[in-house]
Amino acid sequence: MDSPPAPIARTPEPPYYAVIFTSRRTEGDAGYAAMSERMVDLASRRPGFLGLESVRGADGSGITVSYWESEESISGWKRDVDHLGAQRQGRERWYEDYAVRVAKVERAYGR
Amino acid sequence: MDSPPAPIARTPEPPYYAVIFTSRRTEGDAGYAAMSERMVDLASRRPGFLGLESVRGADGSGITVSYWESEESISGWKRDVDHLGAQRQGRERWYEDYAVRVAKVERAYGR
Repeated sequence: MDSPPAPIARTPEPPYYAVIFTSRRTEGDAGYAAMSERMVDLASRRPGFLGLESVRGADGSGITVSYWESEESISGWKRDVDHLGAQRQGRERWYEDYAVRVAKVERAYGR
Repeated sequence: MDSPPAPIARTPEPPYYAVIFTSRRTEGDAGYAAMSERMVDLASRRPGFLGLESVRGADGSGITVSYWESEESISGWKRDVDHLGAQRQGRERWYEDYAVRVAKVERAYGR
């Protein structure tokens, strides 16, 4: 691969929030890659953004988890004008299926 | 790909719990694929198991999210003897890095 492995987000001590976005992509790019990159960039500059982890498999299945300080920071990003446009195109063109789950991280551990 | 795309878990209405497991694999299989399949099979037969979504990218980054009825069902699975063995091998051989986050899903929506 040309790009380094996606890093594991270095989040603060819980509690904080996670948005778990699970998806299955349609075939073809249709502007997806550029928009996806732009959304990650925009999200990471929102207030309350803590980090993001994203993986897509060769079969088109993807999981993106973004981490946020508060529910308010999540709803702010959900209502962002550019993000609303991406959400609409996601429903219409890019995703065969998806699920969004908003969860409060209560504990965390790792290496 | 030979296998169909990983399905999106059909979970009940929130609240329920999510275990977000983010990892970076070491190179080579070293028994990982077989153990991984076995763990998914064992987990799915545990009381309180609601579903699982798992994606690994070509760069070795992976995200697995398992869904559970309660914190008790999560701690039961964490202490499972076979799972404890897999956790140890994961730390020693299979994962360069990983993070585990336990979160309470408060709301969910999708297609």
